[in-house]
Amino acid sequence: MGDSVKPFLKVLAGEKTERPPIWLMRQAGRYLPEYRAIRSQANGFLDLCYTPKWAAEVTLQPIRRYGFDAAILFSDILVVPDALGQEVTFVEGEGPRLDPVTCSADVSSLSTTWVRQRLEPVFETIQLIKSDLSDDVALIGFSGAPWTVATYMVEGRGSRDFAAIKGWAYRDPEGFGSLIDILVEGTADYLCAQVEAGVDALQIFDTWAGVLPEPAFQAFVTDPTRRIVEKVRAQHPDIPIIGFPRGAGPAYPDYLKQTGVTALGLDTAVPIGWAADTLQTLAPVQGNLDPIHLLAAGDGLKAEVDRIVSGFANGPHIFNLGHGIIKETDPETVADLVSWVRYP
Amino acid sequence: MGDSVKPFLKVLAGEKTERPPIWLMRQAGRYLPEYRAIRSQANGFLDLCYTPKWAAEVTLQPIRRYGFDAAILFSDILVVPDALGQEVTFVEGEGPRLDPVTCSADVSSLSTTWVRQRLEPVFETIQLIKSDLSDDVALIGFSGAPWTVATYMVEGRGSRDFAAIKGWAYRDPEGFGSLIDILVEGTADYLCAQVEAGVDALQIFDTWAGVLPEPAFQAFVTDPTRRIVEKVRAQHPDIPIIGFPRGAGPAYPDYLKQTGVTALGLDTAVPIGWAADTLQTLAPVQGNLDPIHLLAAGDGLKAEVDRIVSGFANGPHIFNLGHGIIKETDPETVADLVSWVRYP
Repeated sequence: MGDSVKPFLKVLAGEKTERPPIWLMRQAGRYLPEYRAIRSQANGFLDLCYTPKWAAEVTLQPIRRYGFDAAILFSDILVVPDALGQEVTFVEGEGPRLDPVTCSADVSSLSTTWVRQRLEPVFETIQLIKSDLSDDVALIGFSGAPWTVATYMVEGRGSRDFAAIKGWAYRDPEGFGSLIDILVEGTADYLCAQVEAGVDALQIFDTWAGVLPEPAFQAFVTDPTRRIVEKVRAQHPDIPIIGFPRGAGPAYPDYLKQTGVTALGLDTAVPIGWAADTLQTLAPVQGNLDPIHLLAAGDGLKAEVDRIVSGFANGPHIFNLGHGIIKETDPETVADLVSWVRYP
Repeated sequence: MGDSVKPFLKVLAGEKTERPPIWLMRQAGRYLPEYRAIRSQANGFLDLCYTPKWAAEVTLQPIRRYGFDAAILFSDILVVPDALGQEVTFVEGEGPRLDPVTCSADVSSLSTTWVRQRLEPVFETIQLIKSDLSDDVALIGFSGAPWTVATYMVEGRGSRDFAAIKGWAYRDPEGFGSLIDILVEGTADYLCAQVEAGVDALQIFDTWAGVLPEPAFQAFVTDPTRRIVEKVRAQHPDIPIIGFPRGAGPAYPDYLKQTGVTALGLDTAVPIGWAADTLQTLAPVQGNLDPIHLLAAGDGLKAEVDRIVSGFANGPHIFNLGHGIIKETDPETVADLVSWVRYP
């Protein structure tokens, strides 16, 4: 299958490599002038995501520039609500806007029926990328986790206190559960279709996992992710899946054991000694440089790279950020980072 | 000293009580109509903080209404930068605005010299509250921790990604360290003066502790807090100090051991079983109901109260929220909460 020549997949299979493979969350993005050139041709952000030649091109740009060990499909976690029938728009410079889903009746207007059909451009994008990617570079597909996608579906936009979604989830766990159920179905189907189109691994982003108390974390983060992993594995038993429950803190170990993900993405705040002892002994880990270090550059960045690489040197580790790259990052600093990670 | 009749202080001394004492972060605030009535008389938020009769009155309002086991001085963490010489204003409905401190030269325009003099109204407020508080209710003084106060001083307002402060701290840890140093000095002095005015315990709020990678957490959260605890204890060896490094997750145990705080405030995301095993065996814990549960009310709230009370029943526990109370909370729900915590 050629997998053995991809260092990223070796590590996901549990191998420890001499130096960690590297990719960066949001590596295809606004910090790159070549991305901005393509972006300016598109009629809005979703048009970029849904136009295979553009989406494939921006996916490949950081691979050409830096030689990362993995490409990640250029898309957005909100294509799933879009495919379920909830209109999604992106306001320039402000972020996503959705007409909020706030009750069971709203949920019943959503449907998983057209997920594969509506997201056909994504699968086409994957095929285009694959045809252009060299043998040693892996392609990662992804989705948001149900909880995180639901925050945007219910709040209608980014939130700080999550009062609307938590209010609904706490008052009416069954009604809210029906939204989670439809997201589990739709997301699992979407991820399966990505595998069928050719991705080598999957990542499930749960950006807002860290805002929930224990029972809600179990019900809305761990359980739905476990159900997605089971559904995907039923179709594709060997596909590696990286779970990224950002901010889960002390709940990371149970999340790992209960969801059955292959590997864990670690956020910036996770202490390395603790993670090496508690998590990396059980599964490969990925992370966790603060993206602001990449912005700050210089000696501080170099010291952090050394600390992270050596802290995770005793087990399988993929170098990454703890959160997405920031658009003000200097592309030259990213080149420094890659060389510091690769060559001691 | 009458301390033995205050259940809140008994727990801070390590006693396990039949039912946990209770107070709520931001219990004096906008959810109470009697607070809004006083607030409307003040010429801005800081005027309210700096007018002893008003600040004392709003501190006492939730004690009268609910009979909480502790009152917390009504004030704001940003009175410290104000006293250090950085102008602080509050924009109605938007939050604080400060002219940002961004380099060593800016730091040198700040001074700890006038902290006690400028914050005299706070100490007067404490005396007024004490004269009105019954023997079984404790009075808590507080400050922000240096890192959290510095986020507002450097960003000039609330932030989402902390790019300005982290950028400075990562590029120039020494220059940024001089700001932390002045905050350690000024905060320790301020807290000592609160003790001298009569508070029974202190809480150090580190709201943004959870956004830092390990070395920065050590340098800007743990170390400065330890230094403040040492300085306060040098003057007042017996004062109980609650540390609240919100979002510290797996770093909570080291924070506890290294800072020497008496007790730990736990945020909403901290799993109770983990905290009971890892933290409560070493120190009293306080927390950690999600404030949105108080907004959602009903059976979900009752179940969470039972879970938290029983989960921490084997050691010293003070019932509280995991974050401040939300202004839309129904005052009647708070009354329900208090009775559910007190009577099984």
